[in-house]
Amino acid sequence: MIVEIAEINIKAGQESQFESAVAEAAALFRAAKGCRGLRLQRGIERPGCYQLVVHWETLEDHTVGFRSSAAFGKWRELAGPHFASAPQVQHVQTVLDNDWR
Amino acid sequence: MIVEIAEINIKAGQESQFESAVAEAAALFRAAKGCRGLRLQRGIERPGCYQLVVHWETLEDHTVGFRSSAAFGKWRELAGPHFASAPQVQHVQTVLDNDWR
Repeated sequence: MIVEIAEINIKAGQESQFESAVAEAAALFRAAKGCRGLRLQRGIERPGCYQLVVHWETLEDHTVGFRSSAAFGKWRELAGPHFASAPQVQHVQTVLDNDWR
Repeated sequence: MIVEIAEINIKAGQESQFESAVAEAAALFRAAKGCRGLRLQRGIERPGCYQLVVHWETLEDHTVGFRSSAAFGKWRELAGPHFASAPQVQHVQTVLDNDWR
């Protein structure tokens, strides 16, 4: 399992429209091969800065499978108009996980 | 619930020592007031870049309570020697969470 983290700056005043667009686009991710979950986080110090966190079975499920699919185009069609700049994307792996909630 | 994300660059060759230090320091976070979980993520594109992700009940549990505690000093004593530069810290809130694993 790998985690995609896309940092996305949103045009001022379009935050709630962007959040609705992500909620609508969630179904596209859910249907994508290898996609296991999606979370949207909003900055406290920088409220115009969001992180879209997506769990994928493999790196290629995101970088090859999803990005070359029609769903990627639809995702960008929904959310893209609210982007203030190009998303900065990285992938990470969890090396330690302690949850004591 | 808020999430602290500390991006930490580690000195080359000290990655496994840093990971062990975080595993040891987890008990300090576990004992801290308002702390609900800790995750360590390692970059795939940038393997020397880690993210320490900590869940706190409130922002102040981290920025006031933990940072002014003796535990913070111990955490930095354990992990700090492996830092290549000062951690970049931000806080986020989850606005959408879909998990279909």
